[in-house]
Formats: sequence, C-alpha cells, structure tokens
Amino acid sequence: MSETSRPLDVVILAAGQGTRMKSALPKVLHPVAGRPMVAWAVKAAQELEARQVVVVTGHGADQVEAALAGQGVAFARQAQQLGTGHAFLTGLEALRSHGDADVLVLYGDTPLLRAQTLRDLLADHRARGSAFTVLTGELPDATGYGRILRDEAGAVSRIVEQKDATPEERAVREFNSGVYLMDGRARELAARITNTNASGEYYLTDLLGLYRQQGAAVQAFKLPDPDEVMGANDRAGLADAQRILRERLTTEHMRAGVTIPMPETVYIEDTVQIAQDVTLEPGVVLRGTTRIASGVTVGAYSVLTDAVLHGGVVIKPHSVLEGAEVGAGSDVGPFARLRPGTVLAEGVHIGNFVETKNAQLAAGVKAGHLAYLGDVTIGQETNVGAGTIVANFDGVNKHRTQVGAGVFIGSNSTLIAPRVVGDAAFVAAGSALHEDVPEGALAVARGKQRTLEGWSRRYWGGMREKVAQKLPWLSGWLDRGSTQ
Amino acid sequence: MSETSRPLDVVILAAGQGTRMKSALPKVLHPVAGRPMVAWAVKAAQELEARQVVVVTGHGADQVEAALAGQGVAFARQAQQLGTGHAFLTGLEALRSHGDADVLVLYGDTPLLRAQTLRDLLADHRARGSAFTVLTGELPDATGYGRILRDEAGAVSRIVEQKDATPEERAVREFNSGVYLMDGRARELAARITNTNASGEYYLTDLLGLYRQQGAAVQAFKLPDPDEVMGANDRAGLADAQRILRERLTTEHMRAGVTIPMPETVYIEDTVQIAQDVTLEPGVVLRGTTRIASGVTVGAYSVLTDAVLHGGVVIKPHSVLEGAEVGAGSDVGPFARLRPGTVLAEGVHIGNFVETKNAQLAAGVKAGHLAYLGDVTIGQETNVGAGTIVANFDGVNKHRTQVGAGVFIGSNSTLIAPRVVGDAAFVAAGSALHEDVPEGALAVARGKQRTLEGWSRRYWGGMREKVAQKLPWLSGWLDRGSTQ
Amino acid sequence: MSETSRPLDVVILAAGQGTRMKSALPKVLHPVAGRPMVAWAVKAAQELEARQVVVVTGHGADQVEAALAGQGVAFARQAQQLGTGHAFLTGLEALRSHGDADVLVLYGDTPLLRAQTLRDLLADHRARGSAFTVLTGELPDATGYGRILRDEAGAVSRIVEQKDATPEERAVREFNSGVYLMDGRARELAARITNTNASGEYYLTDLLGLYRQQGAAVQAFKLPDPDEVMGANDRAGLADAQRILRERLTTEHMRAGVTIPMPETVYIEDTVQIAQDVTLEPGVVLRGTTRIASGVTVGAYSVLTDAVLHGGVVIKPHSVLEGAEVGAGSDVGPFARLRPGTVLAEGVHIGNFVETKNAQLAAGVKAGHLAYLGDVTIGQETNVGAGTIVANFDGVNKHRTQVGAGVFIGSNSTLIAPRVVGDAAFVAAGSALHEDVPEGALAVARGKQRTLEGWSRRYWGGMREKVAQKLPWLSGWLDRGSTQ
Repeated sequence: MSETSRPLDVVILAAGQGTRMKSALPKVLHPVAGRPMVAWAVKAAQELEARQVVVVTGHGADQVEAALAGQGVAFARQAQQLGTGHAFLTGLEALRSHGDADVLVLYGDTPLLRAQTLRDLLADHRARGSAFTVLTGELPDATGYGRILRDEAGAVSRIVEQKDATPEERAVREFNSGVYLMDGRARELAARITNTNASGEYYLTDLLGLYRQQGAAVQAFKLPDPDEVMGANDRAGLADAQRILRERLTTEHMRAGVTIPMPETVYIEDTVQIAQDVTLEPGVVLRGTTRIASGVTVGAYSVLTDAVLHGGVVIKPHSVLEGAEVGAGSDVGPFARLRPGTVLAEGVHIGNFVETKNAQLAAGVKAGHLAYLGDVTIGQETNVGAGTIVANFDGVNKHRTQVGAGVFIGSNSTLIAPRVVGDAAFVAAGSALHEDVPEGALAVARGKQRTLEGWSRRYWGGMREKVAQKLPWLSGWLDRGSTQ
Repeated sequence: MSETSRPLDVVILAAGQGTRMKSALPKVLHPVAGRPMVAWAVKAAQELEARQVVVVTGHGADQVEAALAGQGVAFARQAQQLGTGHAFLTGLEALRSHGDADVLVLYGDTPLLRAQTLRDLLADHRARGSAFTVLTGELPDATGYGRILRDEAGAVSRIVEQKDATPEERAVREFNSGVYLMDGRARELAARITNTNASGEYYLTDLLGLYRQQGAAVQAFKLPDPDEVMGANDRAGLADAQRILRERLTTEHMRAGVTIPMPETVYIEDTVQIAQDVTLEPGVVLRGTTRIASGVTVGAYSVLTDAVLHGGVVIKPHSVLEGAEVGAGSDVGPFARLRPGTVLAEGVHIGNFVETKNAQLAAGVKAGHLAYLGDVTIGQETNVGAGTIVANFDGVNKHRTQVGAGVFIGSNSTLIAPRVVGDAAFVAAGSALHEDVPEGALAVARGKQRTLEGWSRRYWGGMREKVAQKLPWLSGWLDRGSTQ
Repeated sequence: MSETSRPLDVVILAAGQGTRMKSALPKVLHPVAGRPMVAWAVKAAQELEARQVVVVTGHGADQVEAALAGQGVAFARQAQQLGTGHAFLTGLEALRSHGDADVLVLYGDTPLLRAQTLRDLLADHRARGSAFTVLTGELPDATGYGRILRDEAGAVSRIVEQKDATPEERAVREFNSGVYLMDGRARELAARITNTNASGEYYLTDLLGLYRQQGAAVQAFKLPDPDEVMGANDRAGLADAQRILRERLTTEHMRAGVTIPMPETVYIEDTVQIAQDVTLEPGVVLRGTTRIASGVTVGAYSVLTDAVLHGGVVIKPHSVLEGAEVGAGSDVGPFARLRPGTVLAEGVHIGNFVETKNAQLAAGVKAGHLAYLGDVTIGQETNVGAGTIVANFDGVNKHRTQVGAGVFIGSNSTLIAPRVVGDAAFVAAGSALHEDVPEGALAVARGKQRTLEGWSRRYWGGMREKVAQKLPWLSGWLDRGSTQ
C-alpha cells in the first residue's frame, strides 16, 4: 500500500465445491458480470496493491488455476477439505515471506465486495492499531450468519455460529462476513487452530480467540452495505449478484453523463469505457474492452464485444460488433455484424444485413445492404452495391481482395479473391469478377439478356389449376389471354 | 388419486365475461406464460389425476370449448349467467357419476394456483376427514374478498362478502379464495342453493352453510402464498400473473443449474426442458416443446419455439429457431433463422443472415453468410458460399434439391430446384445452376468477364456536377484525368 | 379555460444549467419517453388551453429555443441567473397582456407532472377563490424540499427552506413543489421580490408572503402522488422519470385492452396509438406517430417508428419499421426492415433479411428472403425470389423500377433501375436485367452452364495436405479416386 510501508498479502479461499450450483464448473468460476467470481476477489486484491496474492484451490483446482493463470497470483492446493482454518493455513504456507505483512482473507464467491470497502477496512485497521479486524455487517435478521458478540466495553469478544447461538445471541444483528485482516502473527496463530469440535473441522473463526488470547487488539469494521458480502451459492444467487453489480455499473455510468433510458435492461461489463453524452438504448449489451466516445448512440438490442466507437457514431438497433473499430461519424446497422479485424474510417455507412471481417474500409465507403465483406481493403468513397459478396474462401484458404477508391460495385456482384479492383473502376451489377479490374475500367461479368415473348403464358398454362387456386389475378390474366 | 381409493372430480368455472379485459377473446382464453388461463386450471386438475374434469362455459363458449378440445375434459354450458352456485350445479350435472367422489371447484382465471397446493389441500381434507374444505389465504388487507369467519372454537362458521361485512369483519385478514373441496353430497346440496337474496343470484358460497346444516365437518386450508389465487381481471392483471409465473419458472431453472444472468428479461414457457449448465443470455425467449441439452449457450435476444438443441450447441445472439433440431457442437447465428424441418447434424456452422427450411444438413456443413437453404439435403463437409440461394419455388410448387458431401458451392450461386449436385463437385461463384452437376465436376454458369478500359471516366464525366458535390475524391480523380 | 372566462398564462422556468447532467446538452432538453423534459411542461400547458406560454431560457438558450420552435410558445431570456424570482419576472415581462389572467409557474425538469393534476389544481384554486395556490406534496421524509408551514387555523403561512428549517419544521411532511398558481397581481408582486438574503438571490417562494401581506387568500393543493413533481437532476433521475412515465403508459394501454406480457421490457412513446386486442411481445419499442390497429401482434424486440399497421398484421420478432405502412393481414419479418416510403397493401408477405424503401407493394406480393426492394412499385401477386436486388443507384442518382402484377422474379436476380417489367413476366433465376421485360415474356440474363467432369479431383489434389487436415471426408474421396 502506498499509504504505509507495511506490505499486504492476500489469501483467497476458493476450494469449495458449491454443490448447489449443480454444475460441472467449479463454483468460483461461475461468471458474474463478465468475470468468474474468484476473479473479482483477485481484482479487489490487486486494486489494494497487494504484495502477494495466493488463491487456495481444491475442488476443480486445475480449472480454477487455469482460469487465473497469468494474472500474477500464486496457488496453494488444499488436498483435503478440512475446514476454512486449514485452507487459510494452506494459503499462508504458499507465501514467499511471512510476518512482515498484514494478511487479508478473501473468498472466491463474494463478487460484490468493493476494493474501496477493503481500502477503508485497511485504513481503519491501521489507524486503530488493530491486530485483527473482522469485517462485519448488520442485517435486521442475520439468520444463517455467525454473530458478533461484544463485551460490556463494546469490544469484539467472540463470534458465535448460528447453530451454537442462544436465542439472545440470535437476536444480534451484527454478523461475521468471514473477511479478516490481521497482522504478521497470522501464520503462527493459524497453526494453533484445532479441529477438536463436533464437526472435526478447522475453523478460521477460531483465529479471533487466538488473537485475543495474545492480548492483541481485536476490532470490527462494519460494512456500510451488507450486500457486499453476499455469497452466491446457486444460480439464483448468481443472478442476484449480477443484478447488484449491474445496477452499480449502470448507475455509475449514468452519474458520469451516460443516458440509459431503461437501465434495468442494459448489461455493461466493468471493463467497458463510456464517455459523456453517449446514449445506450434498451437492451444494449456491452462487453470486454469496448470503448465508446462522446456523442455515440448505441441502438436497441445491439451487442458489442471489444468494440471501439469513435465520436458521434450511430449504431442502429440489432447490430452485433466484435473486435471492430468504427470511425467518427460512421453509422452502422440495423442488423449489421462487424467481426474482428473490421476497421471503419470516418463517415463510413454500413447498412442492414451486412457482415464485415478483416475489412478495412476507408472514409466514406458505403455498403448499405446485404453484403459480405471478408478479408478486404476498400478505398475511400467506394460504393458497395446491395448483395455484394467478397468470395474470400477457396475451400481451404482465405484470400485477400483490394478495392480502390471511388469504385462503384454494382449490386449482386461477386469478387472472387484474390482480386484487385483499381481506383474509380466500375463493376456492372450481377458480375462475378474472376479477373482484376484496372483503374477507371468497366468490368461486366454476367450473361447477356435474352427475352422470349409469350413464354409465361405457356409456362403458367401448364399448371393452370394450381394457378387458379393460388394466384387469382394471374389466373385471370391467363384466361384473358386464352380468349385473345 | 393414488393415495386413496376415492376418486376426484373437478369442476372448472369458466363462463364469465371479463368485461375489463376489453377484448373480443373470452377472458379465460387470454394467455399467460404460453397457455390460455383456463388451460392452467385444466393442467392442475390433470396433475391431480382427476377422474372427470368438467369446464363450465358461457360467454364465448364456442371459443373456449374449441381451445380445450382434445384435452380430455367435458363441457357444460351455462346458458344464463345466474351466479356461481348455478354454474357449479351446471358443471355437476355434466358429471357421468355422482356421490362417489370428492369434488373440487376451480376457476378459469386463476393461473397461478399450483397443483402442489391442491395436492396439499386434498391431503389435508382427507387427513382431517373434512366434508367441505375451503381454500383460504391471508393478506394484511383483504379488501374486496369475502372474509372467513370462525366461531369461538376456531372452526369456520361463515363466509361474509365484502359488501355485507361489518367493520370488525372487514378487519379479518383470512379471505375466501373461492376454491372448495367437498364430499359426495355436492350435487344434492348445490341443488338447494337459492337465489332469494338482494342480487337474485345463486351463490356458491352458500354451500358452506348447507354443509354445516348437515352437521358435516367444514374446514379451511390456508394457502402459504396468497398470490396463488390472484385472479387476472384485466391485461395489467394478466401481466402480473405472467411475471409471477415467469419468476417461478426462471427460479426453478436456476436452482436446477441453469445460468440466467438477467432472469427478469427472459421468457420461458413451462413446457420447455433445459439441462444443467446451460446459459441463457439476456432477453432469450423459449417457447413450446423446446429442449436444450447440457453445455448449450443461447445468445441474447434469441427466440426459440419447439427447437431441440443438442449438447454444447452455441446459438449466437438474435437467432430465431422454430421447429428446428441442432446437432451437438453446432453453432448458429447471430441473425440466423432456422425454420421447421431444419435438422442440423453435429458440428454444423450456420452464420449470419442465413435461413433454412426443410433442410437436412449433414455433419460439418458450413453456411456462414447470407443464404437461403430451403427444401434441401446437403452432405457432410459441404461448404455453402455466401449469398447462396436454393431456388425451391417455381411459382406454385416447391421442389427439392440434393447436394452431396464435400461439395464447394461458390458465393452468390443459385441452385434452381429440383437440382442434384454430386459429391465433391465444385460450383463456381456466381453460377445459376440449371443443370445437375455430376460427382467431382466443376460447374460454371455465369457470364465471362469483359473489361472496358477508360469507361469510368466517360461515365462519371457525364454527371460531373453531381460527382463534384457528392464524391470529392472521385471528382479529383476525374480532374486529374482531364489534364492527362 | 372553457370552464371559466378568466384566461390562463403559463411561465415555464427552463434556464438552469443542470451541472449534474454532465452534458453538452442543456438539462431541460434531455429526453424522457421521447420528448425533451421541457416539452412535457409545454404539452401540459397546452392541454390546459393556456392563452400564453412563455419559456424562460438561460443556459443553452439557443438550443432550448430551437428545440421548441414552432410549438406556439414565446421565449424570455434570463441573461443572468439571479434566482427563480427573477426568472419568473423575466417570464412575466414577456407576456403580451397582464393582470387579466391567472398565472401558473411550471418547470422544465419535472416531466412527470400530469395535465390532469394541473386541471384539478386550477379547479380547486377557482372554486376556493384562492389568490395564490401552491402545489404541495407529502412524503414520509421530505428532506431537501422546502416545507409548508401552516398557522393554527391550518392555513398556509409560510414556506421554509431545508437549510433554514428548525428540527420541528424539518419533521413536516408537506413540501413545496415550486408550482404556483396565482391571480392577476403576479407581475406587480413579483416585482417586489428582493435579493436581500444570504445568497443574494431573488426567491420565487417570497411571492407567497407578498400575497399574504395583501390579505389575499393563499391556499395549498396537495398532489395525490408526490412523484409527479420529482425533478430529474442527473441521468439516473432521468431514468427514474422514464420508468415512471413508461409504467404509466404501458398500464394505460393494458387497461384499454392491449396485451403486454412483459411490460417492464416494453417502451412506448405517448404519441403512439394502439387499438384493442393488440399484443406487444417482450422488448418491443414503439416510437413517434406509430398507429396499430386491432388484432396486430408485434413480435419480440421489434422497433417501430412512425409506422402504421392495419388490422391483423403480424410483425415477427426482430423487425425494424420506420415510416412504413403495412396493409391488413400482411406479415413481416423476422429480421425485416421497412424504411420510409414503404407501403404494403393487404396480405403482403415480407420475410427475413428483406429491406424495403420507397416501395409500394400491391396486395399479395411475396418477398420472403434476403432482398432489397428500393424505389420500386410492384403489382399484385408478384413473387420476388430470394436474393433479389433492385439496383436503384447509379453512383449519384436513384432511379425507379416498375414491376407488374403476377410477375415471377427468380432468385438472385438483379433489376437494374430504371427498369420496367410487364405483368405476368417471368425472370429466370440469377438474371441481371439490363433491359425491360414485356408483359408475359421470359427474361434470361445469366451465363449458360458448362460442366467440366473430373475437375474437382485436380483442384483439391493441388492442396491435398490442407484438405487432409480440414476435410477428412473429402480427403477420403480424393484417396479413393487416386486408386481408381
């Protein structure tokens, strides 16, 4: 921590099974608001600038460790589930150094706990010279939680579990969150926790008594919002946590100047950045590293993942963007799909039923309708007609196509890659280009029109009965003809 | 009922007009969570293994009877609306036998009443040897409902209607749901209900007094959740009922291991089956006989009706499936539409803006972009290029097309049905196939490319002014040319 | 007002900055439910049949005045923000006549205030012969608001601001909404408001005391719902106001006979008209002058702006309509986009991935799949094949195409505008029409099919390794061939 010379180590307990999740996925890997639950604890620890972070794994250890690989945390495997006290000790043993740091215990299933709350806890712990601080909360009815008991002087004396509590103790509203912050004696004292109790488990709560036996200062720090330590134990709990996190984020964005008319329908991950005076219409989903500049509107039901939108962009409803960058003043959609590698310059127009992938479109390009632009570079002001397909695939390989500036590509054209179309070229509608087109040239690659007069009458006449049933006007036309 | 030898008959009162619905549709046919309200009562009765179910119809009787046809229920028409007592008697008269069964009265406008609650009611009625049991609920303020009055011994003595209640009686919180379970004397006693009251109506509530006059045991069974008997009287009430049913279902699915990050936006009908470790993204709608296997993700805003998804399928956002089956490991969407008769084998890829109908696609087929696959069979590993259309319609008839395995269909091709394309054939991009293609052959059915150099300059030169206004780069190119 | 001969003038205060909006847009222009906030006040004033409406502008005055231009209101600019009393006086000075009217003060940031409430206020004011009536509300905790103090007789004596209130005064639950209705002395008395107070501002609340000094009758009119005067001060407040307005509107529509199974996901602007027995599926967005006739279903996630739907129309999910009219019994979507100038007659079928613009389609036209119909007129019973494109753009101009009745347009055809296709003509699939087609003629404009047997084997053989990796079946076929 910057405010003090004493380092902070964090042990995150993430070994539990989570049977009520009814899942092949370990409990702590269930995602909430775009991150596995345990990753929220890791993120909080890192925001505290923890020196070491150890994650204690057990059930599904391989999966949990793989999910957190590369995030700068160490792992300690708890081979047997002998209780939280044992899990904590397992974690402490994985620390590279001991005794010189404060130690904070966090959990892999409490994604709502804010870094700011922990920062306040740490400041309070240090300001009061506490040896052991328990994070507590208060609820009108704390049934199910361990209760915080205090002596006459108001000091924390003991934690009593629900099942061991007397009726008076059960009336206590202050509960134990399970989050503890303690001084360098952590390992020495955690090693003294015993399992000589009814369950035969090592309980981490015993640590409070061990600190008190030392005559050390034991304090409580009360959470302003008890929801922060709400654990998610089943998918309904996950959904509750998700809702709370979502409301936090949408409210923060609104307070910062983002218009969200129906915030309860909008999903924004915490990795997303949104500037002032952006409007998010109903049902918008924003994921990953999406960044949105000022003046942008994201239309209803659009789903954006890792997208970058520059100033004033309009995304119309029902658009799906992934790994795409959209230049200032461009408009996209409705029903557009921009896939990874799409880079649109300023003032590009992408209309409905248009897909782009690995596509660089220069300023002012227009592709308004029903097109597939894959593995292609297109110069400025080029107009891509409706129904244009860049045929980039030969069955096993993808090839790249280059289209110049000021090109007119007629409707329903096919550009068979690899193809080069020069600046200001003109491609006739319906062409399947199998040769390159020089600058300024017209390419026509379609059949010539032949017209057979009177043909329809013979054709429809051959199925006159069905025509009569289904197409009364046409049937009438046939009849008129037959009397001519 | 299996737990006793006494059969159960059910009379469902569904004759009311429901003026406040403001609808041409009879009140009890308004749907909630995918079923007409009255069908929820029928379903509950059938889950109780009722021997006979009689639905009393009146307003819109033809429509109501048509809607319930084939569901194993009998109908009794109440020609005149003379009150609930008369409606019940009308229903009893339609029973094929009498006196040997318990009789349960249900209503066509209380879709929230659970079969489990009725099962508990029945068990309590029989365990206590009750002759007449009224289902009651308790509300802090029961205004509008009839109140349950009890004698000094706590036994149910009378039901008093809101309008007839004294201030003390109005303070009573226990209310009459209108659901009654009674023994074989039902018909005999119901026939004694009179209309000698201010309204001149036959009231079903009078039955309680008639049973008491017999010295029979009259009991109350109190609902744990009074919402269950909430009647839907207008569309706002329908929406409330819908919300409660929806929350029940989404919560049940979550408890069973389905991840639903925004359950308040998801709509699931009770006929849908969902396995463990399925994720339903925001706004998903699941209807009818849809069945979803483990490991599937259904993307945001997708709408599935009668769809079958095998293990590990990924449905990307904004997909609409109806009557389609998707093989294990396939991915579909975004913006895909699978229509009835679509059967995808394993590992099929269907991309954006692709429609299928009566289409059997073998393992590994890919149709990634902008295609219509109607009335077609496609062999394994075939690649369907972007913009491919199977032209299945000749104006009045649909024809079927067969494409082999390992075929490559170039982009923007048209397969004019009925067409047969052999295994490993290759169709050149832009082809309109009007002949069959043998195994291993190349088919090219497009025009040859002609190139006219310098043409663009003349073309754009002819509209130089507009070009100058709208396309500055192209205008510059023209100008450069003119000085060459 | 019609009920009395005395006219009503309205002054709307809309000069404030709204720093907490964090926006380049003036606070009162932030939209709620489709209108800028200030426009809700203007609408309420106009529903009261106000003689004159003056909007006092300040911050962003140019923008505010531009937004309200043409709505029959006058503007008064408050050059300096000297307080609400000064703003009101500025507004009064812009009135064309004085002293003969009641004057009502409204605000540009309270969009929830109903015209009906103001009508009730006005009636009460006049019935009681009040000189000055303050609109009040009551909250369990009115912290932040000015409180209404009353004398022993219960008459309003004073308004005390939060910061000046004693603890007893802070316990008062009746608060000042800031909305006042007063008689013709308004200007004379408003001119007497001074700024000799701690803030040096002119307070409009002082007016109450000035009226009382005249011995005039000062009254309070209590709002039934205090939410109505909730001001929106930041975007979260905007979202709250939006939600309340939305719930009001959806509930009104439901009570009037519209089925909305998930009303909390549906957005309807107050300018939209919906008939009885219409169903709005989840996530529907209805904007502008949209009008929907009886029996219509609007599918999930469809977004309609200024659309007109005639009786029995079915809009399938994910459709986007703007400025389009849909004839009785037509069906549209899913994934359809109807743009301005689209007029569909009766029984038209528009399917998926179809876009129309400036398109008149006669009765019974079918365009089921992947088409662009721009600037086109199509006669009755014409069938538009999948993938059809009307190529309406030559690079700078749009041209119009006319297609007759009973025409069959084969799949993947391109109609190069301006084009005329006669009645009952037949266009072969894959044609790019560059000539007109006479009535009853067949037009074929595509290449002839050539077939090269054995070609595939050479083609795939050339990339045998990649084939082996990616396409095992095809690789096997190649191998089988190599041994032949």
